[in-house]
Amino acid sequence: MLTENQISDFSELLGKDNICIVLHKSPDGDTIGSSFALLYALKRMGKNAQAVCSDEIPDQFMFISDGKKNLDMLFEPDTVVSVDVASESLFGEKFSYLADRVDYSIDHHFSNTFYAKKTILYDSISSAGELMFELFKSADIEIDRYIAEKLYTAISFDSGCFRYSNTSPDTHLAAAELLKFGFDSSSINVKLFDSVSLAQLKLESEALNSVKQYKNNKISMVTVRYSQIERLGVNENELGGLTAITRRIAGTVVGITVREKSDGEIKISLRSQQEAPFPDFDVSKVAGKFGGGGHVRAAGLSMKCSVKEAEKRIIEAVSEEWERLYDNPCK
Amino acid sequence: MLTENQISDFSELLGKDNICIVLHKSPDGDTIGSSFALLYALKRMGKNAQAVCSDEIPDQFMFISDGKKNLDMLFEPDTVVSVDVASESLFGEKFSYLADRVDYSIDHHFSNTFYAKKTILYDSISSAGELMFELFKSADIEIDRYIAEKLYTAISFDSGCFRYSNTSPDTHLAAAELLKFGFDSSSINVKLFDSVSLAQLKLESEALNSVKQYKNNKISMVTVRYSQIERLGVNENELGGLTAITRRIAGTVVGITVREKSDGEIKISLRSQQEAPFPDFDVSKVAGKFGGGGHVRAAGLSMKCSVKEAEKRIIEAVSEEWERLYDNPCK
Repeated sequence: MLTENQISDFSELLGKDNICIVLHKSPDGDTIGSSFALLYALKRMGKNAQAVCSDEIPDQFMFISDGKKNLDMLFEPDTVVSVDVASESLFGEKFSYLADRVDYSIDHHFSNTFYAKKTILYDSISSAGELMFELFKSADIEIDRYIAEKLYTAISFDSGCFRYSNTSPDTHLAAAELLKFGFDSSSINVKLFDSVSLAQLKLESEALNSVKQYKNNKISMVTVRYSQIERLGVNENELGGLTAITRRIAGTVVGITVREKSDGEIKISLRSQQEAPFPDFDVSKVAGKFGGGGHVRAAGLSMKCSVKEAEKRIIEAVSEEWERLYDNPCK
Repeated sequence: MLTENQISDFSELLGKDNICIVLHKSPDGDTIGSSFALLYALKRMGKNAQAVCSDEIPDQFMFISDGKKNLDMLFEPDTVVSVDVASESLFGEKFSYLADRVDYSIDHHFSNTFYAKKTILYDSISSAGELMFELFKSADIEIDRYIAEKLYTAISFDSGCFRYSNTSPDTHLAAAELLKFGFDSSSINVKLFDSVSLAQLKLESEALNSVKQYKNNKISMVTVRYSQIERLGVNENELGGLTAITRRIAGTVVGITVREKSDGEIKISLRSQQEAPFPDFDVSKVAGKFGGGGHVRAAGLSMKCSVKEAEKRIIEAVSEEWERLYDNPCK
């Protein structure tokens, strides 16, 4: 449920003009879908409005941005609204200068740093898309087919097509209402989740073949070297699927993906799944030891060292936490 | 919407006793989930009831059958109800003798052959699970956490976790109502969709590496030989994921999976996806030419010949239909 404050802040925003909506860097289905729904609603109200993003829209998501690859600044705004942007650093390079003049931040991340003058934060909701849906309803903004398609796409993206634990009864109620507009949700989901280039599929195969398992196969670690990415010709923006690849290996409770970047930096993604009898393994705690962060079940960090050294350090840290949680007889 | 007849047939069934519920052979999440929900509801009403299946429940789905691997006949029934069983042949060997004495068939398949005395058929609904949900509501059967979990599992399985085109607003409304019982839907979806053995993942990698593409990469064909299945140690019941594997290759409109079985028979799965500017490619039409069948977007067939010959025949038939639909300038 939205609070009175959230509803009145959103209604205040709707009274503004010359509005610039900011997406987060490395834009995904949620930030694009919910921003484009808001952009369209504002324009339909007769407002001067634009959406900007520091990074290019990946090809895979250009169906959400109405075919646009670059979202550049078109006019000097009076009002700045960020959508799905948890912190200043996520504004990206090009539009970093906007971070200290944000009037409204509309977000669903627990980790929001309250950089905006007013923050409309709802951190137990699946997605910025679902939050936007609730805000539109609170403000009596008419949902039409265009808005329905954008919001459905945003919600489906961030909930992993309703499969992640952030999916609530309300998420399904929103989807039910949006789907009534009769667009082809199946095609959207193919584009969001099932459409992978052959190069990507081959890289994923190689990654899975590299798996190393620990602690009775409950911890799985896969490693991808930059030379593989280069050889197979996989684009930088096609690497998102790798972060959750360990989720697919049956029996994995903690998944680790180690990826070497073109500049030699090592990016590590951590994922955990609840599986009886293991209580939640908080991967953000392990990430935090290396200056990273995230959520209980999904976190990330970076290291500057060799791939071998990174593998060694992260498996040591994960194993240590594992032993503390599950192997300690005095617990 | 259920018809008056469907509601009264179901209510008649609830008045019976000594009931045997029949699942289809090669049981999946939908037939197991919806049958177990009905079984439980009948027992809670004080009825003598059992569920039977000709085949073993695959390990992956034993969480739905309350840990049971074999569903054998425990008593001589007075009333036989089939759930999610489209035709007599789907009763399987062990319980084929029940096919001509079915009192009620509860089903959502367009291809239902009306073998039962009374058929409660709703062919535009996502799943037997969703149909059972509507029937329970029509009969005022109280939904509790156990029933909610079984029905959610059935619906999620058959709708591909709400991603297939059979997902309607009502499917999401059902999910919203069921999820209110607070079970862990995320874990269920991991078990249904994301839990794949390493052997399976390796087989999928090999299959994808074998891909051959035709018609400007719009047709993709992958082939799996029995020797690969044997070498990697993949179980027969772990091969379900292969049928839709071409769905993952970006740009594929028609996907063909050719699989050699242990007895040398060749099993071919066909899938199609809607993608502008191509109108629906009806794969059941191609399957029908070889004595197979299915739906517009998913069909299957068998051949008795060499793998090479099967590949040749199927690609010819698919290409011919492709040319008729899209390449004909006089169309």
